Amino acid sequence: MTFQRHLTLGVLATTALLPTIGLTQEADTTPTNAEIGFIFTTFMFLVSGFLVFFMAAGFAMLEAGLVRGKNVTMQLTKNMALFSLASIFYYILGYNLMYPGDAWTMEGVLGALSVTSLEPVGLEGADPDLTYASVGSDFFFQLMFCAATASIVSGAVAERIKLWPFLAFVIVLTAVIYPIQASWKWGGGFLQVMEFQDFAGSTVVHSVGGWAALMGAIILGPRLGKYKGGRVNPMPGSNLALATLGTFILWLGWFGFNGGSQLYMDSAANVADISRIFSNTNTAAAAGAAVALILTQLLYKKPDLTMILNGALAGLVSITAEPLTPTLVQSTLIGGIGGAIVVFAVPMLDRLKIDDVVGAIPVHLFAGIWGTIAVCFTNDAASFGTQLYAILVVGVFVSTASALVWFLLQATVGLRVDEETEINGLDMAELGMEAYPEFSKV
Amino acid sequence: MTFQRHLTLGVLATTALLPTIGLTQEADTTPTNAEIGFIFTTFMFLVSGFLVFFMAAGFAMLEAGLVRGKNVTMQLTKNMALFSLASIFYYILGYNLMYPGDAWTMEGVLGALSVTSLEPVGLEGADPDLTYASVGSDFFFQLMFCAATASIVSGAVAERIKLWPFLAFVIVLTAVIYPIQASWKWGGGFLQVMEFQDFAGSTVVHSVGGWAALMGAIILGPRLGKYKGGRVNPMPGSNLALATLGTFILWLGWFGFNGGSQLYMDSAANVADISRIFSNTNTAAAAGAAVALILTQLLYKKPDLTMILNGALAGLVSITAEPLTPTLVQSTLIGGIGGAIVVFAVPMLDRLKIDDVVGAIPVHLFAGIWGTIAVCFTNDAASFGTQLYAILVVGVFVSTASALVWFLLQATVGLRVDEETEINGLDMAELGMEAYPEFSKV
Amino acid sequence: MTFQRHLTLGVLATTALLPTIGLTQEADTTPTNAEIGFIFTTFMFLVSGFLVFFMAAGFAMLEAGLVRGKNVTMQLTKNMALFSLASIFYYILGYNLMYPGDAWTMEGVLGALSVTSLEPVGLEGADPDLTYASVGSDFFFQLMFCAATASIVSGAVAERIKLWPFLAFVIVLTAVIYPIQASWKWGGGFLQVMEFQDFAGSTVVHSVGGWAALMGAIILGPRLGKYKGGRVNPMPGSNLALATLGTFILWLGWFGFNGGSQLYMDSAANVADISRIFSNTNTAAAAGAAVALILTQLLYKKPDLTMILNGALAGLVSITAEPLTPTLVQSTLIGGIGGAIVVFAVPMLDRLKIDDVVGAIPVHLFAGIWGTIAVCFTNDAASFGTQLYAILVVGVFVSTASALVWFLLQATVGLRVDEETEINGLDMAELGMEAYPEFSKV
Repeated sequence: MTFQRHLTLGVLATTALLPTIGLTQEADTTPTNAEIGFIFTTFMFLVSGFLVFFMAAGFAMLEAGLVRGKNVTMQLTKNMALFSLASIFYYILGYNLMYPGDAWTMEGVLGALSVTSLEPVGLEGADPDLTYASVGSDFFFQLMFCAATASIVSGAVAERIKLWPFLAFVIVLTAVIYPIQASWKWGGGFLQVMEFQDFAGSTVVHSVGGWAALMGAIILGPRLGKYKGGRVNPMPGSNLALATLGTFILWLGWFGFNGGSQLYMDSAANVADISRIFSNTNTAAAAGAAVALILTQLLYKKPDLTMILNGALAGLVSITAEPLTPTLVQSTLIGGIGGAIVVFAVPMLDRLKIDDVVGAIPVHLFAGIWGTIAVCFTNDAASFGTQLYAILVVGVFVSTASALVWFLLQATVGLRVDEETEINGLDMAELGMEAYPEFSKV
Repeated sequence: MTFQRHLTLGVLATTALLPTIGLTQEADTTPTNAEIGFIFTTFMFLVSGFLVFFMAAGFAMLEAGLVRGKNVTMQLTKNMALFSLASIFYYILGYNLMYPGDAWTMEGVLGALSVTSLEPVGLEGADPDLTYASVGSDFFFQLMFCAATASIVSGAVAERIKLWPFLAFVIVLTAVIYPIQASWKWGGGFLQVMEFQDFAGSTVVHSVGGWAALMGAIILGPRLGKYKGGRVNPMPGSNLALATLGTFILWLGWFGFNGGSQLYMDSAANVADISRIFSNTNTAAAAGAAVALILTQLLYKKPDLTMILNGALAGLVSITAEPLTPTLVQSTLIGGIGGAIVVFAVPMLDRLKIDDVVGAIPVHLFAGIWGTIAVCFTNDAASFGTQLYAILVVGVFVSTASALVWFLLQATVGLRVDEETEINGLDMAELGMEAYPEFSKV
Repeated sequence: MTFQRHLTLGVLATTALLPTIGLTQEADTTPTNAEIGFIFTTFMFLVSGFLVFFMAAGFAMLEAGLVRGKNVTMQLTKNMALFSLASIFYYILGYNLMYPGDAWTMEGVLGALSVTSLEPVGLEGADPDLTYASVGSDFFFQLMFCAATASIVSGAVAERIKLWPFLAFVIVLTAVIYPIQASWKWGGGFLQVMEFQDFAGSTVVHSVGGWAALMGAIILGPRLGKYKGGRVNPMPGSNLALATLGTFILWLGWFGFNGGSQLYMDSAANVADISRIFSNTNTAAAAGAAVALILTQLLYKKPDLTMILNGALAGLVSITAEPLTPTLVQSTLIGGIGGAIVVFAVPMLDRLKIDDVVGAIPVHLFAGIWGTIAVCFTNDAASFGTQLYAILVVGVFVSTASALVWFLLQATVGLRVDEETEINGLDMAELGMEAYPEFSKV
């Protein structure tokens, strides 16, 4: 007979730390009925949350693969740093700002401006909401959405923005801009009251990242030489294997992103709904990729892998506003149109001389708008007017606020690296470290 | 007090969308006893399913790492495209074809040929099978198996097959060939009636991909120069780090592949069985890798990383037909023999001038056959004769059907790129895009 | 109507294999109350376990990215092989050695020296501990901790150690050294009796790997040229994208590492605690990365990506000894100090001419010690004296045992490759296979 870790630990731990609930449960060996739904939903948030966490790696790989070799270390650094800063500033300010409660009482304002505090260890002395999930799991899940918003921006402004001003923008975005607009819908604000429908955030997350990225890309201007001589000069990504890996990781993470947004897994109905969401999400991504494959073959006679990758992502963004109600066929159409949007929008942005290095604006902003409108086709609770209104209100707010911050940074510390740095690559000039020091360049 | 997302959402959502079951459950805050098993099993399928989904990334990385640099973009494109097409055609036709029911009634035929339809939102008006799992979760899980079959093929026929004919083959494989033979076992067909044992698909999935790959590799012929001058000319993969990453991802995904095939997680017995499966699956993979390590050291005086990777995969395929009944020691033997098969089969295929770029045929077909036979050693329900019969029947059907499709494609649109394209690499000629444009070639 | 896989399978399977418990449960469609907690906790171990499994890929990518191109294949080979050997030797000896029970009876000794045996299929005839989890899930989870210990070592001794002596060390470490010291705490041994606090193993796992790595690095000596001419000559890693991916994968896996160490998910209190752990773990990692970012900017005027990656990992190691009790602010401090330790310790080791290729010793040993001490600040059950005593006892035991094994190997088969091999790279000389054969070198 083995003297197992859990026996000893269990006894000591419950004695020392978990005097009431923990001890009772372990003695009884079974959760009470009231706890079962709580455990299911909380665990679902944790699993969904780690999937969405992994999207940070997906964005990092996608972007590292799509920038040129001389800027890869910088892109990796930005992605590690932005996720880390988002993790910190979201708990310091963002999370509570997002759920303002009765904000215009003194108590409400203090609550909204306070540091996130989780339920006590062992729920001791706590009065948990057993109809939902633990505060910690909700925080963990919500944080990952906020961080994703910042990840969207970093790709669009790559290869020419300075590190620290970018990170300053990330802090404002994740601590203030994202939470304020998210509160309008997910914090019970006016968009929620109007019954604006945005299941997992085509508008609340993706378009927000997209608007911030668009403002950044416009204010920064295009990379040197990108539109030189009246032509669009291709600047191919340095590692398409990484970009493909990143796309697969994002696709994987999206199951958590959309599935977890069901918010409950405490009944047969809820878990069956999550299953619908997984199936629809996968179908929309597949359709986006397939349409981009076919369209680039038809338009350019050659399938374009980077378009296929962005097509899959656009399919995912498109289904995010409503991954539950569509049938599989409807999901195919919604995602497929998302893929088509990318194929047509990427050259359109180039004609406007807006230089979006990885295609983040077509994927997250344009497909996000499309997805938000598409809700009307499958969900009777959605009003076309309300959807449009919400897209506009969020767009105006985020664009204005982002532009303001970008301009402020430009006017003070400067946003853009100097020409020599940009030509030589940000890695050596700003970081003194190459991503692939041994692979000689063409 | 925060005014949380879920409160508002919950109330509105249930009012708007989930009038009966959803509302009741949330009001009660606890699932009924009859629902708990359903939630457990459904969630288990979703978690297993996303793990198997991720195997698509594993195959993509493995194959991208094992082809030469000039064909990497094409291999990535094929992997993204095949998964996307499988996702669409499996729901359009494959899934229902796989569960034919009373197929020779008119109703049965129409059912088998119909588009997959999931349970309604909130299970409203549905009569879900609470003893099992949601239809959506079953569909999601089964789809990933079907897609894996197609991923197996793409590696073997790499570096010389045209994109579109390959994708046409994928559509037939995933919409028709795979589902028909899978119905014989998993759809309750004659192999199931005969009590053929194939827990998670050494035969139903892996050998199917393997036979299709074998036919493709034979019909296509070897890569130019591979067997020139009577010698086997090594064509080393371009990125062993990616190949190793791909192998680890596949290993990870296999926990879902085999674990989820328990099909139930609604009792202590079932979850304990899933634990056995996880442990056995891991052990078999480890043994396959270890045997390949030792054997290549003994045979060639130098361990061969690509053999070790394929050894791990062969160990995984070998245990897939019966990951539940073996002890850890038996799993070591079963997986270890799988690893040995790879070490001996790879040069054997080369002697036959069958050019399998990534070793998919030894791994998925030969180890799949071995695994199917090995069931007899640990599971009394298996009859050697039945196992052999099933291997043969599936092999004859899939080989014939695949060969037919390959020949048809060859006779009409052609399967193989022209010599110049093959020499210059498929990436530039067919796609106009290099995977690593900046890393100069030797 | 579809004739579904599970119906047929279910009936046959239960008839054939699961005569008692399985059948009953499926007929009833609902777990009994006593089983629910068991299912929750067991599934939690399986999910946590596959996350920790994936850390093997994380270590492999981190290390492959931080070594030079000529040694990448070897580093990948070592990582595949060490995980495989750990998987085998841990079940053959390690697992039971770790839970010695009444070890000084004959029965106890035989038990501790026996091969791991899992609960029978369908729990038939078993008397499972329904208050905990299945033996298979516990084994699976514990194995991954043991394997992680070995992964820690491989990075520090990279680029000059021979393959087979390294693997011999791994076998001793995972079969004997790790299990013996782990039994002191997690097997109910004297450190457990003294109430030493080490939630998920800052000492029991990370410092153990760190001490073994330190002894190896000292005994092997530095790489040729590393400290030539009285200077520290940088030997930059060949692929920072892979190193970053590896770090993200490790970060992901850590949610399973720390979260699963709660050991129970059978009550609201336990799942809420796991949520705290997820949130604290993420926060500490973020803080470690952020501090390394800021400190390298301040000290060297340029942020250092490899320091940021190691800062995140050090944050994770630091919170591992107590991820439950801290607040988010405390987690920030604990993780942030971990990040600072790395920034200062890496050059310190270099001054001592201890050549740790990937920074494993600062990350796992130094931050592991810090984390073990930091428990005292947030957990009243921890005594500073006991924490220090445990650090020392484990350190002395592991250092001595490791040094002994390293010396034995050096004296018999030799540890280090010859100079020519080291200069040309281990890949061609020892394995005859390059990781990136087509990317020409600078």
